[in-house]
Amino acid sequence: MSETRPSGNAAPLGRVSIIGLGLMGGSLAKALRRAEQASHITGCGRAVLCQRGMDEGFLDAGTQSAEEAVARADYVFLCTPVETSLTLLAQIAPHLAPQAVVSDVGSTKENFARAAREIFGASADERVLPGHPLAGRELSGLEHATADLYENCLWVLTPLAEGNVWTPRQQALVSALEKIGARVVRTTPAEHDRVLAYTSHLPQMLSTALALTLAETFEQSDPALEIHAGGLRTMLRLAGSEPKMWEQIAASNRTNVAAALEQMEKTLKKLRESLGEAEFRAEFERAREFAKFLKG
Amino acid sequence: MSETRPSGNAAPLGRVSIIGLGLMGGSLAKALRRAEQASHITGCGRAVLCQRGMDEGFLDAGTQSAEEAVARADYVFLCTPVETSLTLLAQIAPHLAPQAVVSDVGSTKENFARAAREIFGASADERVLPGHPLAGRELSGLEHATADLYENCLWVLTPLAEGNVWTPRQQALVSALEKIGARVVRTTPAEHDRVLAYTSHLPQMLSTALALTLAETFEQSDPALEIHAGGLRTMLRLAGSEPKMWEQIAASNRTNVAAALEQMEKTLKKLRESLGEAEFRAEFERAREFAKFLKG
Repeated sequence: MSETRPSGNAAPLGRVSIIGLGLMGGSLAKALRRAEQASHITGCGRAVLCQRGMDEGFLDAGTQSAEEAVARADYVFLCTPVETSLTLLAQIAPHLAPQAVVSDVGSTKENFARAAREIFGASADERVLPGHPLAGRELSGLEHATADLYENCLWVLTPLAEGNVWTPRQQALVSALEKIGARVVRTTPAEHDRVLAYTSHLPQMLSTALALTLAETFEQSDPALEIHAGGLRTMLRLAGSEPKMWEQIAASNRTNVAAALEQMEKTLKKLRESLGEAEFRAEFERAREFAKFLKG
Repeated sequence: MSETRPSGNAAPLGRVSIIGLGLMGGSLAKALRRAEQASHITGCGRAVLCQRGMDEGFLDAGTQSAEEAVARADYVFLCTPVETSLTLLAQIAPHLAPQAVVSDVGSTKENFARAAREIFGASADERVLPGHPLAGRELSGLEHATADLYENCLWVLTPLAEGNVWTPRQQALVSALEKIGARVVRTTPAEHDRVLAYTSHLPQMLSTALALTLAETFEQSDPALEIHAGGLRTMLRLAGSEPKMWEQIAASNRTNVAAALEQMEKTLKKLRESLGEAEFRAEFERAREFAKFLKG
């Protein structure tokens, strides 16, 4: 492990390890450093990224070994794609200090919570606090990481324990996230995955499926495709998202996403059968009302 | 008819009548005036809108009678929802000067072309030139009309005659549209409607159906809906569009829109069945490639 400076002074989260130095992990390191929420930050990722972090001062140490990264940590954040984080959780578990709290930033939460229970048993409630910041994802990589990515960002935490009480160490994490600008909300892993299937995964699948439908109908070079307006570009924006990330989200939230897609297919069929009928107008008005409410 | 000034000097389009003083018609009047493409512009619409046009100088005369509006016109633009324009075309036909060319700005073209043939018979090719500027539609009404709405906007013209030749009067119209900043492309009414079903009407239906699917799953006031990211808002943007306009588009392009929707339903089903399978990644990559190409 390379090290630029010894442990700093006491800070709310103490020693923090961030595994995965992409957009999410890099931004978290920068944000915690700027808000002085960590006394020491270790990054785990490719050597060139660790070096950049140390050069720029948002990392104090860098390593390619997850085990080494977590050995002395008070808080560990897994900032990798959802399935990678499952593997890492099992890998780091034996190397964690007893008081360490592990969190993550993955887009689905049930699988992660289940893995935590399997690995940590009765102490999982206290040792693992799954999380999901709903931050922009169109860009990726450390080169796009910024200290303000999480400002005004909704950060969902899904504790494994029932009830509404944070442990003191969880409370410290919540406070640190609020200090970097996040709006923390709490729900269960199951509810998170059910809701996100509709409010995030379904919109993504629609954009991707729209691109596929067009690709089946037109050659990419068909000049007819020039005849489109801004609405098409809007609806295709999400289709440009990272395939690897979405492959893992789709797999890890399969049942909920399938249910949302099936419901969407039924809605489209109903809308199709109402084209030119009085019912169409009523449905269109209803959709407009709902969309307006959500945007407002 | 109220009149603010007599005919002006000669200009490429001579006397222009614009029926319908909403976003499209109002912007067209303002743009033609600014680019000095019309010697005289008559607006047909509610008295208060005509008055505003004359006060602001982009109309020279205003009337509530379509017949009166077109009596001395060289060019007539129907700027009303698609089904209204069909009715108006029949209504104004007996009152048009023999040399007058009628165009429109409707979102579907086959019905309009068919109506033109029924009304004008063999002379329809010369007297009617259906058109469709692909301009922003999220706002509506004269209060949002601007002289630059059509700058860099794709303006599709769908002549009734086969071939690639413009008549001199059609050529004058093309030139005037280019002078107000539009990029004119030419296709057939049938091809226009088939392509737009995929590149405009399908994206609209998806946004509307997404809002309906959410409305079926969540109460509008459900706090769970707070858990959503920017992607949802992006995908719901079009759902806020004008219901009356879309009711008429859906009805007038029913067959094409139904085919596009049915294909989309199949794509969604296929994607749903591939969740967690290797095929999912391949499809996602394919969609991404296509979306990137179209945006670039």
